[in-house]
Amino acid sequence: MKDFLININGQIHNGPEARISVFDRGFLYGDSVYESTRTFNRKPFRIHQHIDRLFLSAEKISLLPTYSKEQILSEVLKTIKASPCSDLTIRIVLTRGTNTDLGLDTDLSGDNNLIIFTKEIKPNPAWWLTDGVSMIFYQKKIEVSGSLPKTGNYQENILGNREAHQQKAYDAFMINTFGFVTEGTTSNAWIIKDGTLYTPPLSDGVLDGLTRKTLFEMAKRQKLSLPLVEKRLTPEDFKNADECFITSTTRNIVPVTKIEERNIGPGIPGRITLELLRIYLEFVN
Amino acid sequence: MKDFLININGQIHNGPEARISVFDRGFLYGDSVYESTRTFNRKPFRIHQHIDRLFLSAEKISLLPTYSKEQILSEVLKTIKASPCSDLTIRIVLTRGTNTDLGLDTDLSGDNNLIIFTKEIKPNPAWWLTDGVSMIFYQKKIEVSGSLPKTGNYQENILGNREAHQQKAYDAFMINTFGFVTEGTTSNAWIIKDGTLYTPPLSDGVLDGLTRKTLFEMAKRQKLSLPLVEKRLTPEDFKNADECFITSTTRNIVPVTKIEERNIGPGIPGRITLELLRIYLEFVN
Repeated sequence: MKDFLININGQIHNGPEARISVFDRGFLYGDSVYESTRTFNRKPFRIHQHIDRLFLSAEKISLLPTYSKEQILSEVLKTIKASPCSDLTIRIVLTRGTNTDLGLDTDLSGDNNLIIFTKEIKPNPAWWLTDGVSMIFYQKKIEVSGSLPKTGNYQENILGNREAHQQKAYDAFMINTFGFVTEGTTSNAWIIKDGTLYTPPLSDGVLDGLTRKTLFEMAKRQKLSLPLVEKRLTPEDFKNADECFITSTTRNIVPVTKIEERNIGPGIPGRITLELLRIYLEFVN
Repeated sequence: MKDFLININGQIHNGPEARISVFDRGFLYGDSVYESTRTFNRKPFRIHQHIDRLFLSAEKISLLPTYSKEQILSEVLKTIKASPCSDLTIRIVLTRGTNTDLGLDTDLSGDNNLIIFTKEIKPNPAWWLTDGVSMIFYQKKIEVSGSLPKTGNYQENILGNREAHQQKAYDAFMINTFGFVTEGTTSNAWIIKDGTLYTPPLSDGVLDGLTRKTLFEMAKRQKLSLPLVEKRLTPEDFKNADECFITSTTRNIVPVTKIEERNIGPGIPGRITLELLRIYLEFVN
């Protein structure tokens, strides 16, 4: 927490000093939307797309932004500038605002609260690339239609992540009410089978991840060495994959080598996965 | 907010001064549980049951309390004592704690944060009893099994409540994925039909409301003038009821006279509903 620089409605605080009203609706009800990104060479990565998606999430929960996209961008840049670190993780939280009274009524709050967290980014542990990480399946209880908004309502994902840790796994793949795999608790999910790259469609209840989007863009520009197909995928598809990995903005591509204690392929990071990581980093840098 | 007295981890603050770390998991992820109650004659109502249920909710989301029930009770009593008001509403929030870093991992937080909100209670508007309130139906998207934990994840209920307000209704009845009515966004739901009182079973995804519980207790002790039956209820059952009402700890019994712009019975608060309110208040006072 000491390493954090936090911008709250334009004021920059050190981590431990950053406080917010207990009447903030994000605190009271999880009534907030957010985005996570990082910098490369002190420049925020795909920041316009992230801010666009923040506004899309806000729209999905009928949260009317009282900040403009330009104001949010300017506050992000200001916070990065204030940091002494070389490269940073960035979490942007927009809450519906501070309530004047207890109650769900959205009219109880006026202006949004904008909170920007920044912290020096750590390199991924080397063993993610040498050994890969293990996964479990977790029955997601939220029924979905279409891609997910990123809200402060994180209970299901917290429980999936917690269950994974209790089983000594790295994280969980979420399964929707139709029995299909959707994503990790903070990542998108991918498999490679018989020379084709697969990922679940957004309509299964998948977050429209920006690293995911980038891989689709690379496929379109013929930068990938294999075809990329969106397809509904079952837990069995994942268990029987040749290779498996997850993607996230802060972590790029992370190989998955074990699911529910069973090896994926020979149980080491896949050759194609590592090649994808190499060309992905080349592409974004 | 000025009328509030807030107890944060044992320190009492005036409403506007009450602040919490932005690393609190309740703020970051809606990772908290809560209870709402009130005082009668400056004594907290069913406080032991409320604290018991707080701990049950905590258990459902694997939140390990670092406060004992006795400590929470003592802080509630301390806050009531500090208030000059005659009678109070009370909201008890227990969050998983303050994170040391960003991340879902539940091990990132140490001790819980305990926040107790208190405010002078206002009498219900007179027109609730003269005119009753109107309701709509809202398709709930969360699939449920068993009674609900009260967590900081309030998105669905916020949206139901908001939709109701946009349609000029008082609140929404939530409908589960099987098409049955479960509850209001912050209340339990009841109908009277052909001389019998009905409410949905907890297994449909209903909060185990304490006013609901009290009515069952009164039925058992033969204090009610009509039989009480737990039954799965459809929107049609509600629309065709003779009488309808909602219950909540802070609001007791509130008659419902209109659903989706259609009158319930003759469109005025039901005779039996008002009689139930009378004997309920007699019973709890």
